[in-house]
Amino acid sequence: MIKVAVVGATGYTGVELLRILVQHPEVSIQMVTSRSEAGTPVASVFPNLREHLSLDFCDPDPEQLAQCDLVFFATPHGAAMALVPELLKKGVKVIDLSADFRIKDAELWAQWYGMPHSCPELLSEAVYGLPEVNRGLIKEAVLVANPGCYPTAVQLGFLPLLKNNLVDPDSLIADAKSGVSGAGRKAAMGTLLCEVSESFKAYAITGHRHQPEIVQGLNEHSSKPVNLTFMPHLVPMIRGIQASLYATLLKKDIDLQSLYEDFYKDEIFVDVMEPGLSPETRSVSGSNMCRMAVTQPAESNKVVVLVVEDNLVKGAAGQAVQNMNIMYGFKETLGLNIVSVLP
Amino acid sequence: MIKVAVVGATGYTGVELLRILVQHPEVSIQMVTSRSEAGTPVASVFPNLREHLSLDFCDPDPEQLAQCDLVFFATPHGAAMALVPELLKKGVKVIDLSADFRIKDAELWAQWYGMPHSCPELLSEAVYGLPEVNRGLIKEAVLVANPGCYPTAVQLGFLPLLKNNLVDPDSLIADAKSGVSGAGRKAAMGTLLCEVSESFKAYAITGHRHQPEIVQGLNEHSSKPVNLTFMPHLVPMIRGIQASLYATLLKKDIDLQSLYEDFYKDEIFVDVMEPGLSPETRSVSGSNMCRMAVTQPAESNKVVVLVVEDNLVKGAAGQAVQNMNIMYGFKETLGLNIVSVLP
Amino acid sequence: MIKVAVVGATGYTGVELLRILVQHPEVSIQMVTSRSEAGTPVASVFPNLREHLSLDFCDPDPEQLAQCDLVFFATPHGAAMALVPELLKKGVKVIDLSADFRIKDAELWAQWYGMPHSCPELLSEAVYGLPEVNRGLIKEAVLVANPGCYPTAVQLGFLPLLKNNLVDPDSLIADAKSGVSGAGRKAAMGTLLCEVSESFKAYAITGHRHQPEIVQGLNEHSSKPVNLTFMPHLVPMIRGIQASLYATLLKKDIDLQSLYEDFYKDEIFVDVMEPGLSPETRSVSGSNMCRMAVTQPAESNKVVVLVVEDNLVKGAAGQAVQNMNIMYGFKETLGLNIVSVLP
Amino acid sequence: MIKVAVVGATGYTGVELLRILVQHPEVSIQMVTSRSEAGTPVASVFPNLREHLSLDFCDPDPEQLAQCDLVFFATPHGAAMALVPELLKKGVKVIDLSADFRIKDAELWAQWYGMPHSCPELLSEAVYGLPEVNRGLIKEAVLVANPGCYPTAVQLGFLPLLKNNLVDPDSLIADAKSGVSGAGRKAAMGTLLCEVSESFKAYAITGHRHQPEIVQGLNEHSSKPVNLTFMPHLVPMIRGIQASLYATLLKKDIDLQSLYEDFYKDEIFVDVMEPGLSPETRSVSGSNMCRMAVTQPAESNKVVVLVVEDNLVKGAAGQAVQNMNIMYGFKETLGLNIVSVLP
Repeated sequence: MIKVAVVGATGYTGVELLRILVQHPEVSIQMVTSRSEAGTPVASVFPNLREHLSLDFCDPDPEQLAQCDLVFFATPHGAAMALVPELLKKGVKVIDLSADFRIKDAELWAQWYGMPHSCPELLSEAVYGLPEVNRGLIKEAVLVANPGCYPTAVQLGFLPLLKNNLVDPDSLIADAKSGVSGAGRKAAMGTLLCEVSESFKAYAITGHRHQPEIVQGLNEHSSKPVNLTFMPHLVPMIRGIQASLYATLLKKDIDLQSLYEDFYKDEIFVDVMEPGLSPETRSVSGSNMCRMAVTQPAESNKVVVLVVEDNLVKGAAGQAVQNMNIMYGFKETLGLNIVSVLP
Repeated sequence: MIKVAVVGATGYTGVELLRILVQHPEVSIQMVTSRSEAGTPVASVFPNLREHLSLDFCDPDPEQLAQCDLVFFATPHGAAMALVPELLKKGVKVIDLSADFRIKDAELWAQWYGMPHSCPELLSEAVYGLPEVNRGLIKEAVLVANPGCYPTAVQLGFLPLLKNNLVDPDSLIADAKSGVSGAGRKAAMGTLLCEVSESFKAYAITGHRHQPEIVQGLNEHSSKPVNLTFMPHLVPMIRGIQASLYATLLKKDIDLQSLYEDFYKDEIFVDVMEPGLSPETRSVSGSNMCRMAVTQPAESNKVVVLVVEDNLVKGAAGQAVQNMNIMYGFKETLGLNIVSVLP
Repeated sequence: MIKVAVVGATGYTGVELLRILVQHPEVSIQMVTSRSEAGTPVASVFPNLREHLSLDFCDPDPEQLAQCDLVFFATPHGAAMALVPELLKKGVKVIDLSADFRIKDAELWAQWYGMPHSCPELLSEAVYGLPEVNRGLIKEAVLVANPGCYPTAVQLGFLPLLKNNLVDPDSLIADAKSGVSGAGRKAAMGTLLCEVSESFKAYAITGHRHQPEIVQGLNEHSSKPVNLTFMPHLVPMIRGIQASLYATLLKKDIDLQSLYEDFYKDEIFVDVMEPGLSPETRSVSGSNMCRMAVTQPAESNKVVVLVVEDNLVKGAAGQAVQNMNIMYGFKETLGLNIVSVLP
Repeated sequence: MIKVAVVGATGYTGVELLRILVQHPEVSIQMVTSRSEAGTPVASVFPNLREHLSLDFCDPDPEQLAQCDLVFFATPHGAAMALVPELLKKGVKVIDLSADFRIKDAELWAQWYGMPHSCPELLSEAVYGLPEVNRGLIKEAVLVANPGCYPTAVQLGFLPLLKNNLVDPDSLIADAKSGVSGAGRKAAMGTLLCEVSESFKAYAITGHRHQPEIVQGLNEHSSKPVNLTFMPHLVPMIRGIQASLYATLLKKDIDLQSLYEDFYKDEIFVDVMEPGLSPETRSVSGSNMCRMAVTQPAESNKVVVLVVEDNLVKGAAGQAVQNMNIMYGFKETLGLNIVSVLP
């Protein structure tokens, strides 16, 4: 049983993390912090937690946080990097669900996130928490940078192709679609039901912060730097990411189906579907599964990979718990053996 | 560990039952039947069950069903009553999620369901599976008639008032609203997304089959027969029932809040909210909770009770598992300690 | 051709008013005001108006407004009453879509709207703009208080019963449901898609501002003061109000169907459906129609009236244009002969 | 004033056509046919047409149809080609909204639509009704093949690039997304609200019937045959198509914004947005507009075109009326000057 805290738990990533942690048999939630809601019962903000969690929100006091074994940050970018150095010094482990430690290049980070990085010296120490790529490093990590939602889907989809040098790294296109929960829980006009339901659009068309994170991850497994066209879209639904990935094949007559099945045969949270099937986001809603299919259009040298995940689970809170399980030597599926609610 | 079968599992009640049963520690699912899908893997119809259930649908063979301890029927009305007598004779217990054994009066049943009842002799033996009312009888039952979705919400909401003779039994109004999953999973024009999303309406305005079931249940606890106006409405969402219940108070200055809290203080699956709060369906989505609030409009002799439940869980599959737990002496919350996914 | 201005047009009522006015053959839109968006093209805030309206938002300068024949206020409450006295003095007519002039009793208004009324002397002059009740007065009015969305539906539904003394005025219950656009267009957590879609709840359970407005209107046509239980609910959709109205009949054997058909036979924007039908909100979406059905549950002394309207059209902007048509002697349907988009 | 009939008007394309035609000042609707609904008032199937259309559905009798000037077919494929030859002989003009006359190659048509073409001799006579390409031919046509929904969006988006030889014809990718109304109005499990809302997926991943239609259209304007990867997706909303189009640029430093603006400067139903904007489907809902934006990702040789339309209007019924206007010399916008309802 480990003692954990969740810092900044008033957002959708936070409540999802709490949903999973309250049912995790090896976790005791000690603190749930929020400056704005300090003193309020967590369950009065999130009624799904009534009867499941009796804590109040409290301030993120470093002394108290230091009494936990592990602290999760579910904060907007910029918040974790202010507290993490002190916590690490005190021997606390950290899983940061925000973007603060995902990009290795502090200047690139500053350019995309609009502020200088306050502890660039920790960037090399932080382990990028994509278990399918970095399981060994995560096991030893004291600071895990939990991947973004789009980056998880896009990297897992492209990796089998890039690692096997099967596609032109210059040809990558990721047409990605997300439910509205990806925009977070904050008073905002742009994500009102009346503004986004019954409509569909591309957004962030001049550049999205997940682009450099994806490129960094893909480059590690590519023979030469990739050129990625990444276009995110907003879907009128709450949860789910679907990414349709396109690339130009360098060879003909590759058995892509076997390639993908083999690549992920030992990964419990990646499911490669049978030929002809298309993954739907609802099939992974609330679960930590990343489900994909690979297909090749007739008379074409393109490959198409279709990937779905729940942006708040495998794309955020679930992957964070998966990382925790790895760090503490728990069974990787502990607390994550969730069946999606359907319909 | 008991051996169970689910008959007629291609509907929404069926898949929800499977979602709960695959994670129940005392249950082994032996058979999942469907005449139309026999031979097909269950998980290919319901992709949320991939990795969680490896059975194929099979025909509902009575001999094989008889090798189970317990058979759930998640069939349209008329199907269970054809098989149940034989199963009971063979010593199998039955929980019927359909309407076949809910109404005690066979003629009344025939009138509302449009067919004669084929085994009226079992109607007195069947126990109406509303644990908050019939827990003792359920414990001893061999045949449980699992309540309808609306009847569960409306009865639980009105019971504290009726049992305490606080309202005029002639004045009852239940304005109930259901998500579309209540209409079932079948090819039908009326529940296409394009027909029911972005719209709201009352339906079945000349009479709904749940009316006699609710009245039968309320009458058992009323000093005189109730007169209930029951109006169901269709909400453009998948899951959830909300019922706003209205009645005329017979006395003044009753502490309704305390009355409700006391009435349900030992019920783990009924949650009475604090004064001023209004239950929302999403707070119980996927969970077995029935959440309610009681309020009295200013300068009025009316009481209003607001009740929510997930129509597929407390209104169907979850309540069925709750009944199973009671029948077999398992902890009543076993397999049902589910946190709603929010958002 | 009359010259009109719309004050406070950044909300949903405002854009709906513009949608109708840009196509009205007797209207020239001179000014569209918004303090926050002054200088911005209206069509850049509301892309549906690209190619249809080339004005920029401007400040609500009284001198310029005074050069119009008619000014619409689509502002939050409190704004219209600050400008209206000056405009009326300058001979400008006003249709106020906000709540400022709906309640005749200034103290009651202050109590519900949380501020003193700044020009109570105008309250008696203001005509309540429900054409089916006040057509004659509207024709002569210089200041029209456009009714609220719920009040329009509830009053039109109850009036035939009350005016004919058919129901107990003490027994009125209005269970009303609204799409989310009723909450307006403003940055707010409570109406984010992720907070309100896939859920249903009652709200404002301790009292809603439309209650006194409805009661005031009903009392004018009731033999004695009514006692109304009004319970609003939030539906996960953009547009539409449905109200299920309940009352206890004082007599038996009344031909309610004929009564309603006769009562509204000359009203172009009220449609009484045939027996057995239930109106759905989508059938009036975008149109100025109020559609209703009347029914009586079997073996009951209750009457149920089902009413639908588009909260932004007959419940706001459409009714305002209907009032304008009456005030200026245009055909009442001019610019309002809109067919709902279905599906 | 011309006399028109709509054959097969029980689908979504049919009701949308009726919505537009009932308000068209130069059209008199003579017949609305449906074999299954013959004798039923049209407005009882489509309540938005109450008060706007008093016809009953009737059988598609060729003698009676021949008394019209123009017949629209809003039928499933295979139905129009059975009646069209006879109607043309009798001097009736036809606009076919189905797929029967879109593909010039009868064998290719048969391969994709699973039946032989019954009047291949008419294929060369049929004019493909994309006004932005074929306006001159449409003016003289007696038989117009109204384009499919996806083909309209994808062709209008790619044409400026292909006609100017700016992109590699081998590199075309169309990632297209459609609301559920594209699947039509028929009893089907796959498009139930409970199956498709709150989810997103690619579909028809092994080939979609609109692929050969798009390729045929693009090839007419390409220096060499195109290779198109076309991937359709289902969006949980009723109306709207969004297509994100990708291609590899052959040249650098092209002013794509000016190119698109110039290309469509005389097209009233194509709107090229300002740089940095992204079109949203709701901005064209119910209207005949095709709205697009062109953008180029930083440090990339790709161009991205974002296109939206209402699949039932510019993608079907609206374009049909636009074609009718051209054929009969009416103003091209007559009856089509519709402002989208927003929100």
